[in-house]
Amino acid sequence: MPTIPTARAVINALLAPASSMPEPTVDRLLHGRPDLPVTGIVTAFMPTLRVIGQAREAGANLVIAHEGLFFSHLERGAEAAESEVARAKRQAVERSGVAVYRCHDALHRYVPDGVTAALAEALGWAPYVREHRPEAALADLPPAALGEIAAGIKRRLGLPALRLAGDPAAMCSRAVLLAGYRGGGALAIPLLEAERADLVVYGEGPEWETPEYVREANRLGRSCGLIALGHAESEEPGMAALAVRLAGLFPHIPVRHIREEPVFRSV
Amino acid sequence: MPTIPTARAVINALLAPASSMPEPTVDRLLHGRPDLPVTGIVTAFMPTLRVIGQAREAGANLVIAHEGLFFSHLERGAEAAESEVARAKRQAVERSGVAVYRCHDALHRYVPDGVTAALAEALGWAPYVREHRPEAALADLPPAALGEIAAGIKRRLGLPALRLAGDPAAMCSRAVLLAGYRGGGALAIPLLEAERADLVVYGEGPEWETPEYVREANRLGRSCGLIALGHAESEEPGMAALAVRLAGLFPHIPVRHIREEPVFRSV
Repeated sequence: MPTIPTARAVINALLAPASSMPEPTVDRLLHGRPDLPVTGIVTAFMPTLRVIGQAREAGANLVIAHEGLFFSHLERGAEAAESEVARAKRQAVERSGVAVYRCHDALHRYVPDGVTAALAEALGWAPYVREHRPEAALADLPPAALGEIAAGIKRRLGLPALRLAGDPAAMCSRAVLLAGYRGGGALAIPLLEAERADLVVYGEGPEWETPEYVREANRLGRSCGLIALGHAESEEPGMAALAVRLAGLFPHIPVRHIREEPVFRSV
Repeated sequence: MPTIPTARAVINALLAPASSMPEPTVDRLLHGRPDLPVTGIVTAFMPTLRVIGQAREAGANLVIAHEGLFFSHLERGAEAAESEVARAKRQAVERSGVAVYRCHDALHRYVPDGVTAALAEALGWAPYVREHRPEAALADLPPAALGEIAAGIKRRLGLPALRLAGDPAAMCSRAVLLAGYRGGGALAIPLLEAERADLVVYGEGPEWETPEYVREANRLGRSCGLIALGHAESEEPGMAALAVRLAGLFPHIPVRHIREEPVFRSV
């Protein structure tokens, strides 16, 4: 008879490839017990009520999400505890009977980073990656115009919109890829210069840092393009790839990824 | 003969309405001397090379900007000092002969906040503001659908695009207005709930906080819309209003606001 894994066994499988774990870590069971027999797994970027409801309808009782339930990275601030919406969501999660585990730090510590590597794969860039760093992938792309690259990314990731900075006609080939909230200037700017990069693609970052750097770099004759994918949009492929890996490890239970709608609509 | 003010006199005029100043403050002369005789003033959100060049062409030798020259809020990190683009920009600023003063903390400490009040005015919301807080304006708007409000904001601010979360058909009237990078969950979420607000309009904030809160609030039956203007887009009116004020204080020199292009293009 096929073995039904416990939540603990699934969590151990999630942790196994991580090179190390930070102390403290945000990765933990946000709801549910470690000895839960897991009937099915859903991975998602964000453990929204829709994701949890669809998991339950499909007979899955473990959601593995990249972010937390209550709208903040650490989820320990007073705001999470005091928010009425957070309280109502907590009750809905409890009623659902679905356990929720957060897999954030571990996945970023796979070698290479499980989120960045899956994003590179989803973009079709995997063959062009010359180096995986802990925080970035560096790629030598076939030269193409920034606007063309953006159109290709929209198509490949199925995005209704993305944001770019720089000249859409500028040719780009040396790319820096930064998943999630790694678009800040302190990380991106030294990397762009050290790698003589002419393209940075990131999830999210402060608007007055790297985008303004790119604007001035172009005005100073240093051609540079920037594509901001959106935070969820940049990390969704990592959680989809994780579902594929878990399906291989736990062949006797259903495992699937659920993709949420974009949180923003561009108008 | 009309008096030509020094940069120091202009700075003193900028500081005068501030209720207090933080220690330390980011407000300071980023380039130039306090005893500079000021021939003309340009205000801007960001002291870009284009703004500085246009100021110089117009005979103005003092740019008053909300953000700094080198792509970070504090501008004291290693990244600002080591960036090639920052070095080249610094040289271009030095060659320009234009002084650059940063007016950030003071303007946010005007009563009401000079950035938020100007944004409310630019949106046509000034008559509906019921309370100005240090970090937000609270407004009772004529009820309208979220999508209509967004379209009106685009028109009034002249924006090519903005981002919204929530149902475009949902009626909104109790609004929270947050300029700049005040869209984070720790600030916005308790305010939305305490004020029973059904609309939050902010400049910028982490995508996985307030937008995800809004998504779940709607799913839990608490109607809430969100409009993200963009950081610069939300603070530009404050710097435009500052030019009007300075023109009244220094009638013998030309004072104007220069608006930059949006740093992002939505595609």
